[in-house]
Amino acid sequence: MTMIQKIRQLDSAEAYLLTSVENVAYATGFSGDSSQVLVTPGGAFFFTDSRFVEMAREEIGSRAEVICTGGQERLPSIAKRLSGIARLGIEQGNVTVREFGEFKKAFPTKEYTDISDDMLLMRMVKTEEELEKIGTAARANEVALNELLPYIKPGVCELDIRAELEYRMKKQGMDLAFPTIAAGGLNSAVPHATPSGYRIRSGDFLTLDFGCRYDGYCSDITRTFGIGNIDGESKKIYDIVNEAQRRAQQEAQIGADTYRVDEAARSYIAENGYGAYYDHGTGHGVGRQIHELPVLNPRSSYILQKNMVFTVEPGIYVPGLGGVRIEDTLVAGRGSVYEFSKELILL
Amino acid sequence: MTMIQKIRQLDSAEAYLLTSVENVAYATGFSGDSSQVLVTPGGAFFFTDSRFVEMAREEIGSRAEVICTGGQERLPSIAKRLSGIARLGIEQGNVTVREFGEFKKAFPTKEYTDISDDMLLMRMVKTEEELEKIGTAARANEVALNELLPYIKPGVCELDIRAELEYRMKKQGMDLAFPTIAAGGLNSAVPHATPSGYRIRSGDFLTLDFGCRYDGYCSDITRTFGIGNIDGESKKIYDIVNEAQRRAQQEAQIGADTYRVDEAARSYIAENGYGAYYDHGTGHGVGRQIHELPVLNPRSSYILQKNMVFTVEPGIYVPGLGGVRIEDTLVAGRGSVYEFSKELILL
Repeated sequence: MTMIQKIRQLDSAEAYLLTSVENVAYATGFSGDSSQVLVTPGGAFFFTDSRFVEMAREEIGSRAEVICTGGQERLPSIAKRLSGIARLGIEQGNVTVREFGEFKKAFPTKEYTDISDDMLLMRMVKTEEELEKIGTAARANEVALNELLPYIKPGVCELDIRAELEYRMKKQGMDLAFPTIAAGGLNSAVPHATPSGYRIRSGDFLTLDFGCRYDGYCSDITRTFGIGNIDGESKKIYDIVNEAQRRAQQEAQIGADTYRVDEAARSYIAENGYGAYYDHGTGHGVGRQIHELPVLNPRSSYILQKNMVFTVEPGIYVPGLGGVRIEDTLVAGRGSVYEFSKELILL
Repeated sequence: MTMIQKIRQLDSAEAYLLTSVENVAYATGFSGDSSQVLVTPGGAFFFTDSRFVEMAREEIGSRAEVICTGGQERLPSIAKRLSGIARLGIEQGNVTVREFGEFKKAFPTKEYTDISDDMLLMRMVKTEEELEKIGTAARANEVALNELLPYIKPGVCELDIRAELEYRMKKQGMDLAFPTIAAGGLNSAVPHATPSGYRIRSGDFLTLDFGCRYDGYCSDITRTFGIGNIDGESKKIYDIVNEAQRRAQQEAQIGADTYRVDEAARSYIAENGYGAYYDHGTGHGVGRQIHELPVLNPRSSYILQKNMVFTVEPGIYVPGLGGVRIEDTLVAGRGSVYEFSKELILL
C-alpha cells in the first residue's frame, strides 16, 4: 500500500491536508520545503512553487499530481480541490493560528479534524527503505566518532570538539539530525548543555550526543568518555548507567510496553542510590524527526512493534561532579544499530 | 527603555504572552528554549523547567521573575497571573491550533489579539548591542571564506566544500544561521540548491550562501566564484549582477522605501536583458531570525530607518548555463558589514 493510500484509510476525515515538511516528505518522497499535499477520496495533489517544481516532478513521480502555484494562488488552488468536502483533516500540532485563519477564509470546508497524532502513529513503524536510511546515518556516526577520538585530549574545548566531530560527519556527505552536544566536566551534569569554550581536563567526563541525518532520516547516539584518569565515584556512576542501559535495552523486545523499558533503567539507577539524579525519559522514537513516537518514560504506554526505531538512553547527572549518558538506537526485533563499545573508554 | 517596557507599550492588549524562542530571547536575554514570557501591566514573568532554571536566573537577572514549573503545571501557572485580564496578545504566527486550544481551556482571558507582527516590527531596528553581535558573526564569515578559498579547485564536490566551510565557521566557535548553500555548475542556476556530490569543473560558477550565528544573532553573505576560466556570457552575467547589487546598495539609504531598493537592482537586470532570470526578492531583514523585517521586494514598502539590518542580494539564474548571486548585509546608515571583494574571483 502506498503512503497516500494509508493516509486515505485514516478515515477521520473526507480529505487530508499535509503541511509539515516531514509529513509532506513521508507521503510523497519530496525533499524540499514550502509545499503541501492534499489527499482526497479520488486524488492526491502536490502544491509547490516554481523553485521546486522540477525537483518535485522528479522525486514524486506518479504519487501525486504536481501543481505549480505562487504564494497568492496557493490556498485558492487547494480550495478548488475541496469542493464537496465537509470535513478536512489538518495538522493542528503544526498549523499556526494565523494559517488556520487563512484556511477558514479560503476553504469551503465546514469542519476540521486533527491528524497530527494519526500521522505520528503511522510513521512509528518503519519500512525497510526507512530502516536502511537510518542505518546509513547511524554507521556514519560510528565512523565520525572513531575518527574523532585521537583528537580528544586534555586542553581541547567543547566548541572545538563539536567542530571536529561535525566536520567528520559532514565529510561523509551527511546532514545533522540535531544540534550536537559536547559537554565536559561539570557541564556533563547538564543533560542538554550547550557547547562552550570550556577546556576539558584530566578527571572530567565528556559526553557527546550527536547524530547524522541521511536522505531525511535521523540517527542518534550518545557516549560518555573519561578524560585521563577518573575517580572512583565517577567510575561507579559510569558502570551503573551502563548496566541500566543494558537492562533497558534487554527489556525492549517486541511486545514490551514502553514504560517497562523505562522502568528497567530507572529502577536499577534508583536501587543504586542515584534515583534523584535521573530526571528525563529513557527514550524516544527516531525517524524523519529526531523526536517521534514511541515515547519511553514512566507515563508512556506504547507496545513495541517490529521495526519501530527508538533510543534507550538513561543517565545520571550529579551537579558539582559530572554526568554520564549512554544511548543506543534500537530497531525493535533487531537490536541496536550500533557496534561502538559502551564500556568506559579513557582518553 | 527595557524590552519588557517596549512590549507593554504595544497597547494592543492588556497582557502579552511570548512563546517563540526568538521573542523570549529578545525580551529577556534567555538563550535556551521551552520557556515563555508573560508581560502584564504590573509584572514580567518567565516560565521554565528545572533544566533551565539556573541558566535563566543568571541570564535574565531582574528583567523578569523566574518561575520554575513542569510541563503539566505550566498553563495553570500562567493562568494564575492572568486573572482580571480580558485581552491577551499572543503570537498567532507561531502558536499552533493545538496550543491555542489549550490556551483557551486554561486561561480566563476572553479575547486574543495577534502580536506576531508587532514583535517583528519592534525587532526591526537594532540596538548597538545587537549590531555588535551581528558584526561579530559577519566577520567570522569573512575569516572562514578567506580560509576556504585555497581548498576550492576543479574536482572537489559541493558537499565537501560545505563541510570545509562550516568547519572553518565552527572552529571560530560559531553556530550556523541557516543551512549552507554550495551550488556549482548548473546547480548554481537554482537559487536555493541543496549541496550534492557534484564535482565542480573549470568553466563553472560556484555560489556560496552561508552565515554564522553568534550569541543568537544571524549573519548572511553570498559570493559567486568562477572556476578556472569562465566564458563570455558568464562574465557578462556576473558583471550585471555586481552592478545591480551596487545600485541597490547605493539606493538603500536611511529614508528610502524598500521597493525602490528592489527596483534599483531589478530594473538594471531587466534593462540588460535578464529580467526573466531574476524571480526572487532583493533582500530581507536579519536578526535573531535569518528572515525578518524589513522585506525588500517589488510589493514591499518599509522606510529604511537607522540601524535596520538587511541583505541586498540580486541574482541571475539561467537554466542550463548557471547562476550568480551577490549578497551583502547592510546596516542602514552605516553601509555593508563586509569588506570581502565583490569583483569576480577565478579559483
